[in-house]
Amino acid sequence: MDRTIWWDSPAGRIGLVDQTLLPARYEAIACADIDALVEAIRVLRVRGAPALGVAGAYGVALAARTVEAPSFEGYLSRVREASARVRSARPTAVNLAWGVDRVLAAIGEASAVEEVQSRTLAEAERIAEEDLAMCRALGALGAALLPDDATVLTHCNAGALACVGWGTALGVVRSAVEGGKRVSVIACETRPLLQGARLTAFELRRDGIPVTVCPDSAAALLMREGGIDAVIVGADRICRDAVFNKVGTYMHAITARHHGIPFYVAAPSSTLDPIHCGAEVEIEERGRDEVACLCGTPSVPDGVPVRNPAFDLTPLELVTAIITERGVFRDPANLFSP
Amino acid sequence: MDRTIWWDSPAGRIGLVDQTLLPARYEAIACADIDALVEAIRVLRVRGAPALGVAGAYGVALAARTVEAPSFEGYLSRVREASARVRSARPTAVNLAWGVDRVLAAIGEASAVEEVQSRTLAEAERIAEEDLAMCRALGALGAALLPDDATVLTHCNAGALACVGWGTALGVVRSAVEGGKRVSVIACETRPLLQGARLTAFELRRDGIPVTVCPDSAAALLMREGGIDAVIVGADRICRDAVFNKVGTYMHAITARHHGIPFYVAAPSSTLDPIHCGAEVEIEERGRDEVACLCGTPSVPDGVPVRNPAFDLTPLELVTAIITERGVFRDPANLFSP
Repeated sequence: MDRTIWWDSPAGRIGLVDQTLLPARYEAIACADIDALVEAIRVLRVRGAPALGVAGAYGVALAARTVEAPSFEGYLSRVREASARVRSARPTAVNLAWGVDRVLAAIGEASAVEEVQSRTLAEAERIAEEDLAMCRALGALGAALLPDDATVLTHCNAGALACVGWGTALGVVRSAVEGGKRVSVIACETRPLLQGARLTAFELRRDGIPVTVCPDSAAALLMREGGIDAVIVGADRICRDAVFNKVGTYMHAITARHHGIPFYVAAPSSTLDPIHCGAEVEIEERGRDEVACLCGTPSVPDGVPVRNPAFDLTPLELVTAIITERGVFRDPANLFSP
Repeated sequence: MDRTIWWDSPAGRIGLVDQTLLPARYEAIACADIDALVEAIRVLRVRGAPALGVAGAYGVALAARTVEAPSFEGYLSRVREASARVRSARPTAVNLAWGVDRVLAAIGEASAVEEVQSRTLAEAERIAEEDLAMCRALGALGAALLPDDATVLTHCNAGALACVGWGTALGVVRSAVEGGKRVSVIACETRPLLQGARLTAFELRRDGIPVTVCPDSAAALLMREGGIDAVIVGADRICRDAVFNKVGTYMHAITARHHGIPFYVAAPSSTLDPIHCGAEVEIEERGRDEVACLCGTPSVPDGVPVRNPAFDLTPLELVTAIITERGVFRDPANLFSP
């Protein structure tokens, strides 16, 4: 399977699958400067917490190749400015800032432009490789939690398209299938931008894993019907008391608990934020038209306001286990206890 | 305010607001024969349990005016056949069958075509008038349950557009506002057909009642934020142990309970079905394209199946009170107890 995001080495730019075009077209675009990368992040050409970490990492490498200044100090300062723009392109997922910061730190005591360029690219490539390895490790650990003949409900896309490859929540599914288990997936469509319908369904169908799409609002009925064995979602940030993930995750957690269905969060350890509580984290409120226009046709009358939070927060008490590449935490409420 | 559905007397046909055109256009169409009425019901030009009851009622009057047969017995039998087609146009809402059956019963011992025509139309008009009176009575009873300065979350459209006028869930809101209370409404958009975004937002804005639209999946977050004082929804059928209503109602009931928010169902007593249990009622599964196509653009990859249940069932235990024109039942779990 191709990667979702990569460094286009000869051209010195970032390549990525433009996810706004799926499922109609699977096409790559190139981000040759920071403006293009920031735009790609903002409009969700690249999205998903792990992929955003890699986008942030490559972003610093791209900054190191594209900014100019008369002095080395000026150059460094512009690299940092450009990186800060990438870092703040979206506020909720912790991985974006994590990827930027880790690559900035790798600059260390570099004393020449070329050295900054090589160090940042090497660190960014390391993060991308680690992302693939992380997904594989996480997938194997999570797969052990699934019974054979399992039906897994998921929300949004925590798949290969949300990472460099393989996926987190869908990595668990892929690893279970690779290990010989039969797994089918219910993909909630995930309004307003339909990442479940467009992306999760796309990548699972491509891999031959059975997938059915349903409206987000039908998940509770499907749980009640008895056909759901587990809910697995990704995470954009796991803070001291809550998981931030695509809006809708919280309702699935509540309804899963109501039906006695295990609710798993699958995410790399880079998603952990042991510093903040949920109340301290900004939930990105996105634009009105994402909800109010369907392919250009207004679905909401003019003048009626719209709420469009991109994420919600799920208290750790509602999470059965958190699956990371480092292990499975079966007592999430005490995840950060000493 | 105009009626949502009416008898066009000079022309001898049914007039109704075509709700598939909203919010872009508020336009009436005429159903001059049973085929047109059945199509209008199937594609949801007219929808909402109380309005479907009236559509079924007028449908029998329309049948009485449009069928022909050599003998009176043959005529009666064709009226019944045509009425049966209307009755089965949609399976879940009990009101459609109720409206048809009540008007058929009014034929009684009629012995001439003209008598059948006049009796069916008189009974259908009576049902339409009762619907308006019912909404007013129900609204006044429900309004007493709302505090001043209330924010009410609702799902789908249980408003004037779902009835002849005024509305059930939104009738409660209108009656509260008429009584001097400040009420604002959160309208969940209601995938896949967006009756909340298109219809609820339209009719509340027209009446100057503050309304905000959100994705269905954001409701739990809004409850958690603390801004929701009550959830009020309509019902398509209230059977012995569960409420059938637009898919998504069940998750709102579970999440409202989780947050300690009262969950009210507002519906005419014609929606009560004391005969059946929830497990005996068919949930209409609608077509794939309602979910998989947005204004003609595929949102789900080809070949991926879709679940599209139109309704779900909410156990009565999760309902705080059922508001009908006959009174408020505060112990819904024992609604049908002797």
